[in-house]
Amino acid sequence: MMLRRVLAATGVPTHSCCMIPGVRILSSHYSRTSLIRTLSTMTTKKLIFAKHFDGEPKPSDFKLVEEKIPALKNGEVQFEALFISVDPYMRPVSVGKPLGHKMFGAQVARVVESKHPNYKKGDNVVGYMGWETHPICNPDTLESPFGALEKPLVLPDFKKLPLSLALGVLGMPGNTAFFGLTELCQPKAGETVCISGAAGAVGSLVGQIAKNLGCKVVGIANKKEKLDWLTSLGFDVVIDYKEEDVDKRLTEKVPQGIDCYFDNVGGEMSSTVLSHMNMFGRVAVCGAIAGYNAKTPPLAPMVQSAIVMNQLRLEGFFVQRWLGRWNEGILKNMGWVQEGKLQFREFVTEGFEKLPEALIGTMRGDAVGKALVKV
Amino acid sequence: MMLRRVLAATGVPTHSCCMIPGVRILSSHYSRTSLIRTLSTMTTKKLIFAKHFDGEPKPSDFKLVEEKIPALKNGEVQFEALFISVDPYMRPVSVGKPLGHKMFGAQVARVVESKHPNYKKGDNVVGYMGWETHPICNPDTLESPFGALEKPLVLPDFKKLPLSLALGVLGMPGNTAFFGLTELCQPKAGETVCISGAAGAVGSLVGQIAKNLGCKVVGIANKKEKLDWLTSLGFDVVIDYKEEDVDKRLTEKVPQGIDCYFDNVGGEMSSTVLSHMNMFGRVAVCGAIAGYNAKTPPLAPMVQSAIVMNQLRLEGFFVQRWLGRWNEGILKNMGWVQEGKLQFREFVTEGFEKLPEALIGTMRGDAVGKALVKV
Repeated sequence: MMLRRVLAATGVPTHSCCMIPGVRILSSHYSRTSLIRTLSTMTTKKLIFAKHFDGEPKPSDFKLVEEKIPALKNGEVQFEALFISVDPYMRPVSVGKPLGHKMFGAQVARVVESKHPNYKKGDNVVGYMGWETHPICNPDTLESPFGALEKPLVLPDFKKLPLSLALGVLGMPGNTAFFGLTELCQPKAGETVCISGAAGAVGSLVGQIAKNLGCKVVGIANKKEKLDWLTSLGFDVVIDYKEEDVDKRLTEKVPQGIDCYFDNVGGEMSSTVLSHMNMFGRVAVCGAIAGYNAKTPPLAPMVQSAIVMNQLRLEGFFVQRWLGRWNEGILKNMGWVQEGKLQFREFVTEGFEKLPEALIGTMRGDAVGKALVKV
Repeated sequence: MMLRRVLAATGVPTHSCCMIPGVRILSSHYSRTSLIRTLSTMTTKKLIFAKHFDGEPKPSDFKLVEEKIPALKNGEVQFEALFISVDPYMRPVSVGKPLGHKMFGAQVARVVESKHPNYKKGDNVVGYMGWETHPICNPDTLESPFGALEKPLVLPDFKKLPLSLALGVLGMPGNTAFFGLTELCQPKAGETVCISGAAGAVGSLVGQIAKNLGCKVVGIANKKEKLDWLTSLGFDVVIDYKEEDVDKRLTEKVPQGIDCYFDNVGGEMSSTVLSHMNMFGRVAVCGAIAGYNAKTPPLAPMVQSAIVMNQLRLEGFFVQRWLGRWNEGILKNMGWVQEGKLQFREFVTEGFEKLPEALIGTMRGDAVGKALVKV
C-alpha cells in the first residue's frame, strides 16, 4: 500500500504552468487559463484501489493519496488533469486489477512539461493517465485499462468547444459511434438503421450520425423522457422495449426492414431485431448490456437462422482498432457539432475527490449523457 | 396439369448427340460417350409436383410426365441431363412452389444443341434445370430455386474425374467449403479452425481444405463411424457433441483457442464454440441445422458478450455470392482432389425415375456423402 506523502517544495520555477491542487478553477476555458504552480504545492493527488469491489462500488473502496511529483525523466511527460471520465465499463474491468494501484481511466489533460519529442508544453491530450491530478508518464509505455499500449492523443484545436468533449462526443464515445457505424454498418442514404441502447452516450450519437448520412433511424430504449429526447433529436421511430412488444412494433413501424443494427444490448432484444433485418444487413456489436450482470450468458432465441437466411454480417469491436484514424472521427463529429447536427449531453461533477461518488452514481443510472468529473 | 404426350419424330438428324431415355448407360465416362438420338425418342421426361409435401415427401407427391421436345428458339439451349442432385434443402424450399410445375434442382448436363452464343454443343454444364432428362432453357432467364437468375455454368475440363463431382466436391458443396472458409474465415497457417456438422458434404471438405492451408482442425459431429472418418481425413481433434461435453473437450483439447469457426449448426453448440474463440476470430455461418425443424428459433446462450469481448466477426452466406468466381474454386479443389488431398464420398442412385425415393432416403439420413442420381 502506498503512503500518503506530503512533501516539501522542490525548487520548480513559479512560471511553470500547472494547476494548484485544491484551488478552485475559476474558468472552464482551460485553453486560455494559465494557472501558477507554487513551491508549496508540488504534489499530485491519486485515488487508489483500497479494496476490491464487492457488488456496487463504495467510497471506502478507494483511498486518496498525495505524493511529491518526481523529477521528469527523458521520454516522460508531466500532465495536469482537467477532466476525468467515469464509465460503467470500469466496474467489470476492475476485476483482477491489483490493490494499492491507481484507478485506471481516461482524462483530458494539459502538457505541463515534456521530455518526449511528440508532446510539447501546452498541448491538450486525452489518455489513460488514470485518477490522478498531475500524472507523469512515458507515453510510449502507457497501458490502457484493456492491457494494450496506448499513447495519450494530442487533441486538435477544439476552437470554442469545451475540452471536456474529448471524453464524449469528441472522444471515445463519439468515435465509437462514428467508426462503429460508418466502418462496420456502412449505411447508405435511404437505408434504415436500428440502435439498441439508443439513449446512451454512444447510441444517441449513432442515431444522429445516421440521420446526418441520410438514413431512417429506429431507436430502442426505455422511459418516456429518453424516448422523447430521441424524437427531438430526429429519430424516426422510437420503441420502449419495456412497455412495448418490440417484434410487433418493428413489424408495424419498420415494414421496409432494417439494413444496419448498432447493438449495445444483445440477448433476446437483438434476436428480435436480427429477425427484422434485410438481406446483407450489417450489425456493429458494440455492447452486450443484457449479459453484463449475469455469471453465465442469459438464454435468447438462436441467431444463426437469421444470419444465414439474410446473409447478415455481425462484428464485435473496441473503438481502439481505429486509433490510427482517431482525429478523423473527432474532426468529422466536431463539424457536425458546430453545425448543430450532433447534440450531446454532459453530466459533470466538480472536484477530483468526488470521483468515487460520480462513478457510483453513474452505475446507478443517475447520469443523463456523458458522466465526467471536472478536476 | 401437364399431359403426358408421346409425340412422333421430328426429323432431327441421327448424329445429334443426345441420350436415349430409358436406355441403360454403359459407361460413366460421359465426356467420351456419344449417344445417338433416334427419331422415335424425341421426348423429355419430367418429374412434377403433384401434391404439396405433408411432412416427409412421398413418391405419390411427384408425377412422371413425358413430353415432346419442342423446336429450339433463338437464345435457348437444349441439354441432356447426366446427373441430378438431391439435397435436403429441397424440402423447405419446396414450400410455396406451384403444383404441376417441374421439380427444381441442380443437374450436370451436356449441351445437345445451342442457339445461345455462350454455350456450344458438347459443353458440360451445371445448372438449375430441374428434374428433367432433356431440358430446354434460355440461360439468361433461368431461375435458381432461390428465385434469382442463375445461368448454367460451363464446366472446365474435368480430365479423368467424373462429371458427377460438379454436384459435390467440384460444385456447390465444394465451393461453399472453399469460398466460405477462405473468404469469410480467412484462415492463416498455424491457426485453429473448428467446424460443426463436420462430417457433412460441406464440413468434411472445409476441414480438409483447412489442413491443406496449414491449419489445426477441430471437427464436431456425431457417431463414432463419422468421427473415425474425420480422423482418417487428418482432423486433429474430433468431438462427439452427443456423447461428450463440447465445452470441456474444447478446454482440454484446444487450449490455444479457436481462430476460425465454420458453422453449419448454430444454437447452443455454437454459443459454446464462440466462447472458445480468440481475439478477432472469424465465423462463416453456413447453416443453422439446429433451427431447421423448429417453428420458432430454439433458445441458446446469448452470443453478443463473446462477440464484443473478442471482437468476433460472423457472416452468414449463400455460395451464390461468388458465382463470378465459380471456376476459381472448382479448379483449386480439383487440384487438391488430383493430388489426393481432398477426399470425397458420393452416394449414387441409378435411374431418373428413382429421384423421388433418392430424395426421401437422403432426408432420412441414408446417404453417406453427396447424394445424387445418375440419369
